[in-house]
Amino acid sequence: MKALRINNGKVALEEIPAPIASDDEAIIEIERAGVCNTDLEIIKGYHNFNGTMGHEFVGTVYDAKDKSFIGKRVVADINQACMKCHVCESGGMHHCPNRSVIGIVNKDGAFAEYLSTTLSSLVEVPQDLALDKIVFAEPVAAALEIQEQIQLDKQNPICVIGDGKLGLLIAMTLDKSGYEVHLVGRHPERLERLGNFSGTYKKTSTERAYAVVVEATGNPQGFQSAIDLIRPRGHLVLKSTYAAPFQFNPSMLVVNEINVVGSRCGPMDKAVEMIASGILDPSSLIDAQMPLEQGIEALNRAQESGVLKVLIQF
Amino acid sequence: MKALRINNGKVALEEIPAPIASDDEAIIEIERAGVCNTDLEIIKGYHNFNGTMGHEFVGTVYDAKDKSFIGKRVVADINQACMKCHVCESGGMHHCPNRSVIGIVNKDGAFAEYLSTTLSSLVEVPQDLALDKIVFAEPVAAALEIQEQIQLDKQNPICVIGDGKLGLLIAMTLDKSGYEVHLVGRHPERLERLGNFSGTYKKTSTERAYAVVVEATGNPQGFQSAIDLIRPRGHLVLKSTYAAPFQFNPSMLVVNEINVVGSRCGPMDKAVEMIASGILDPSSLIDAQMPLEQGIEALNRAQESGVLKVLIQF
Repeated sequence: MKALRINNGKVALEEIPAPIASDDEAIIEIERAGVCNTDLEIIKGYHNFNGTMGHEFVGTVYDAKDKSFIGKRVVADINQACMKCHVCESGGMHHCPNRSVIGIVNKDGAFAEYLSTTLSSLVEVPQDLALDKIVFAEPVAAALEIQEQIQLDKQNPICVIGDGKLGLLIAMTLDKSGYEVHLVGRHPERLERLGNFSGTYKKTSTERAYAVVVEATGNPQGFQSAIDLIRPRGHLVLKSTYAAPFQFNPSMLVVNEINVVGSRCGPMDKAVEMIASGILDPSSLIDAQMPLEQGIEALNRAQESGVLKVLIQF
Repeated sequence: MKALRINNGKVALEEIPAPIASDDEAIIEIERAGVCNTDLEIIKGYHNFNGTMGHEFVGTVYDAKDKSFIGKRVVADINQACMKCHVCESGGMHHCPNRSVIGIVNKDGAFAEYLSTTLSSLVEVPQDLALDKIVFAEPVAAALEIQEQIQLDKQNPICVIGDGKLGLLIAMTLDKSGYEVHLVGRHPERLERLGNFSGTYKKTSTERAYAVVVEATGNPQGFQSAIDLIRPRGHLVLKSTYAAPFQFNPSMLVVNEINVVGSRCGPMDKAVEMIASGILDPSSLIDAQMPLEQGIEALNRAQESGVLKVLIQF
């Protein structure tokens, strides 16, 4: 099968054997995959990953020992936990120290015709749901993780910093969940990408007034802006990783008793529900779609300034 | 009256007029005061404070419009909120943006014969309680703030990093509150300062296993150690401020979904209760006591390597 793979920093479209399912796995025929900023970071060396790239996908089960799965359209949690260690036993499967992560850590990903993953990680999706919507299940789940971690308040606006792919998705999920959103970004033209967004777009904000600020820029300036906007005893949610260390003095976290909450992968089932119900349509974020054969071009396109979601078609 | 004051970085013992109480204030005759690391930072320029230093104290009410206060022995919350702004109205008096802080921000402190402070900030203490114990009420309250902010778990050990004054007090308060404490420090000889401590002292620790880590060193190495010791989805409590910014990459907070909790002043009433009941005796941390006339010497002594609490007597 064809697969877009990275080896020691070099990306190439290769012909490799299709995966074979172990007893607890399914083979999924990929139908649509999305390029995430993490993929772009992996090209720069993140996690020193070697293998097939890609972790945002939807597909149909092609094979599994339990035949009842075959033919189902599915998305999947990208974390594959060992289910044996004390972290897994206490319910922290997403943080299993022995985990593999599809397309990121020790596990071939979704920029390929087929992918193998555990049956327990699968979430079935309706057959009639547009692939261009449900392919966003993984990043939507990551956006929804905020609501799993913090008791949000519908009386006070939530500030989201960053109008890249993830920031826009976070703003949309919060908006559609009934929260008032103030989105701070540099691209006011992207407001129209948010669908019927009932929040407010701001190019800057200066008031130290928000009980909850979500940092989704992944750059030190965004981090500092977040710190400046949060009120004492407020919550700062970090959704993005940072390419390099930067200078920071945590003293103001102490003086203002700020609560910083790191936030990563989220509930796939709730993401599917939100998209399938029609409450959220993330397809407005798509800027380009290309076949797997043009996978390298797709990655290049996703790195261009101003480009939001690039999908890979099969 | 005599007062140990700082003006543009220069500390001097001065003769100044005694304070006069406004309608909502009391005049307190100081009986014992403690030198805190924050005082040492103020000498280096923290908060650009000018005025009488000192914020850890116990004294007796000398004058107040409400005569029923006179003669009572008291400690006081050091934060004087405006009680009018939206922060105060929502119960966040410790974070009032208009607040003054005794001996730190816009308010003369306790290294003086008399001090004025609001009646509402006073907490009465038993007359028969040793001054050498109750003078610790303010830092003990700061240590107890951790228990106000986080739901701690008696089944799992809590790691405290730093065996300076604050780290030792935190270890003691957690220990006496029934939690298992692992104290990581560089001065194992200080173990005897903790009284009948039932926790464990460690010179180093490497396991990424703690659900709660308290950082009380105020230095970048301590901060990094704390990060390294905390398990995914764990809580990192920051109790110390940092003299300068340092290089840091918050990505691992995101990937491991760490919760960082800044922690500052705490409940004075609970601190008084813990000391008055005899559960906690912090006087084992005292290294020196000097009269106010030797105030500059007391500050110098407190800056010496290895010296823990220095008290000023009146």
